Amino acid sequence: MPLDKVPETIVEKDIIRLVCGETRYEGAFIQCKNGAVILKLSNGYNTGILLSHIDNLQLIEKAIEHNSARAIHPQVNSKKNGEKGKPAPKDAAGNGNSISILSSGGTISSRVEYTTGAVFPVLDVDELLSEFPEIAQISPIRAKSVFSILSEDLTPKHWQVLAEEIREEIKSGCTGVVILHGTDTMHYTSAALSFMLQKLPVPVVLVGAQRSPDRGSSDNRQNLISALLAAKSDIATVSLCMHSTVNDDSCLLHLGTKVRKLHSSRRDAFKSVNRLPIAKIFPKEKRIEPLSSYDKRGNSPELEFDNKINGNVGLLYAHPGIKPQLVDKFADYDGIVVAGTGFGHVSTNPSNDKLALPVIGNLKALIDSDVKVVMAPQTIFGRVNLNVYSAGRLLKEIGVIGDGCDFTPETALVKLMWVLGHEKKYAKVKKEMETNIAGEITERSLLIDE
Amino acid sequence: MPLDKVPETIVEKDIIRLVCGETRYEGAFIQCKNGAVILKLSNGYNTGILLSHIDNLQLIEKAIEHNSARAIHPQVNSKKNGEKGKPAPKDAAGNGNSISILSSGGTISSRVEYTTGAVFPVLDVDELLSEFPEIAQISPIRAKSVFSILSEDLTPKHWQVLAEEIREEIKSGCTGVVILHGTDTMHYTSAALSFMLQKLPVPVVLVGAQRSPDRGSSDNRQNLISALLAAKSDIATVSLCMHSTVNDDSCLLHLGTKVRKLHSSRRDAFKSVNRLPIAKIFPKEKRIEPLSSYDKRGNSPELEFDNKINGNVGLLYAHPGIKPQLVDKFADYDGIVVAGTGFGHVSTNPSNDKLALPVIGNLKALIDSDVKVVMAPQTIFGRVNLNVYSAGRLLKEIGVIGDGCDFTPETALVKLMWVLGHEKKYAKVKKEMETNIAGEITERSLLIDE
Repeated sequence: MPLDKVPETIVEKDIIRLVCGETRYEGAFIQCKNGAVILKLSNGYNTGILLSHIDNLQLIEKAIEHNSARAIHPQVNSKKNGEKGKPAPKDAAGNGNSISILSSGGTISSRVEYTTGAVFPVLDVDELLSEFPEIAQISPIRAKSVFSILSEDLTPKHWQVLAEEIREEIKSGCTGVVILHGTDTMHYTSAALSFMLQKLPVPVVLVGAQRSPDRGSSDNRQNLISALLAAKSDIATVSLCMHSTVNDDSCLLHLGTKVRKLHSSRRDAFKSVNRLPIAKIFPKEKRIEPLSSYDKRGNSPELEFDNKINGNVGLLYAHPGIKPQLVDKFADYDGIVVAGTGFGHVSTNPSNDKLALPVIGNLKALIDSDVKVVMAPQTIFGRVNLNVYSAGRLLKEIGVIGDGCDFTPETALVKLMWVLGHEKKYAKVKKEMETNIAGEITERSLLIDE
Repeated sequence: MPLDKVPETIVEKDIIRLVCGETRYEGAFIQCKNGAVILKLSNGYNTGILLSHIDNLQLIEKAIEHNSARAIHPQVNSKKNGEKGKPAPKDAAGNGNSISILSSGGTISSRVEYTTGAVFPVLDVDELLSEFPEIAQISPIRAKSVFSILSEDLTPKHWQVLAEEIREEIKSGCTGVVILHGTDTMHYTSAALSFMLQKLPVPVVLVGAQRSPDRGSSDNRQNLISALLAAKSDIATVSLCMHSTVNDDSCLLHLGTKVRKLHSSRRDAFKSVNRLPIAKIFPKEKRIEPLSSYDKRGNSPELEFDNKINGNVGLLYAHPGIKPQLVDKFADYDGIVVAGTGFGHVSTNPSNDKLALPVIGNLKALIDSDVKVVMAPQTIFGRVNLNVYSAGRLLKEIGVIGDGCDFTPETALVKLMWVLGHEKKYAKVKKEMETNIAGEITERSLLIDE
């Protein structure tokens, strides 16, 4: 017989035990909201359990009697880059059947600063849990804040920390991982995690919101529920989950390396590029409709973890009138991605036009001084092809990498950072960049028009 | 009674006169192909006239007797930047009812170099005219090569020359102007011409091809015919005409400032951004279906011409881990466009995260030293909004320009070059950049989701 309500004698910070069938949860009571009990577990994680799932509630220790060793604080920013995280302790219920929610900040975990009307990201996992009692109907969850910053402030070092945190969650045996993330750079992070976390045994799903929770049009509820469904599914890969259209009926699950933010404000801002999304998710029906092939849970029992990265990589955006001297300013970089025009071009001036400002000589000087230069298409959609026009052939001749690749400039940038974290030799970098590692390069399309 | 064929006595370079009703064309005979006579007129332009339109052909002078003063050569690259072009002389038929085709190079005016299989742009207006006899059914035309280079080799100085050439065509009384252009940077040129040529009395239509003429899937015929229909229509603005889908049934006419190449190889690579296309064109039916409002022929009798431009403008693409020192390297520029994430963000680090690499200080230093910094959305679709998040508000406070603007980074770059060609004062540059000039900024969308 399920619990009706939390007894009034139970107050905040009381240590309680919840008995839910065979499972036991033990932790500090935070609140009961929207029909769910929110607990802070002894490892600092929060969890939310629906009253209707609770058979029995036992008081272990009154709040007033807590000693400091037992007091629980959220583990915010506690791990520094490079410091190996301790294995996450199993919570009272074990972690074998729960989804781990890690927050990095962003609108989906934000509140509005009413004095200015501006939106600030805050750690508010408790609020999230109590706000969305449906979560507990999908799966037991654990939640933790890793960062609480705007996603445009994230750097490759943050990706490293996030990858480590995810590894610890996987080690602890979770069903899947959901990352709450700001949308500005979510596709960069999803690409980075795709390279750092290969052969995933469980799903890793990034999710954000385009609208803050105070707005009627907020997409946080649908996106979060859909992400949890994805994290519980058999799609064992790094993916990104956001609205499929401006309607509130479904989300799309995009492959982490093949997705891009393509609108500043719309809820369906993220689009798969040069690939179908992995699946469509209908949160109300709790249904997942596969749209393309994916790596299945259970096929890769062992995670391949490698979060080494080289941040000394830049992006050069080609455009008419770009000053050749700008290229020279990347001389102290280990690599650059050139977002070229069309099939992957910059000015090479084969017709020796007097008004042209060719940059190919400057690119050659970079390459000759061992800066790796990778081409990606600024058209976003489509593929680099350095064989069709003379400009492409000239670029290939001087050693530009990337012919045949259909990655976005953003994914190419992240991949180059990751590859240069391991390898510096030109031939090896070229080979790794031009070989598919995490779905970022697809086979040449069979569509007649490409 | 129309002409059946060209008499065999007429050979190349013979000067002939064609009588077509009230109209007379006089020039050097080039060839007769696909039922059309190709003439080189005395001003260097070529024209093609259908045999079925010719009432009479008269020989004026045999080729062997030409004196050098009479010899006609194409005017390739004959005008230098800054040199004021002479008014184009009226051809024998006058220019009052003809469309001027200007070629700048690109695939649409290309041939394949069979030794390597690579495609080279060439001046081949004669071939174009004889290849597409349908042209003559739409309108009398004049054709001229201005440049013959790959579009990725075009610079702001080329835009200036092209604008001058178009002005001369308009002065000579043409019905409309069609620009043959490489597709790599066609959207940059269409934006530049939109600012340089305001209050157009006639249509100016840029057109390219994604596939070279030797390929069965070449889109050059449909695009060219559609562009000519657009040039004859009442749509008196700078537009860009390309395939609407991968089918060969229609083209879309996009506004010059609101279009972007969004695929490297597909024939429907160009998409309107943040605005509907102007019209859909059905070349077989010779029908134009308007899709949105446009400036009508006859509303602006006088062209506003201003091709001043400042090439000392760059583009900085924001991304996680961008090195703050890179921003400093734009110190000697007059202006830069920042392609920011989301609503127009870079790392501002309001939460003082230790791993963050904020660039806002470097941007402020640029602005303080009078470099104009304009924000545009790297999401391409959507609008800069510097009021929603703290990052945006901080950027607005230091003087970043562009709040509320929905131009693409490419159009913002071209506009900044043009604005800085006239104006250097911060307040005036800010006002001009944030005010709609050529359709590049639309009113805030009324769509519920934006």
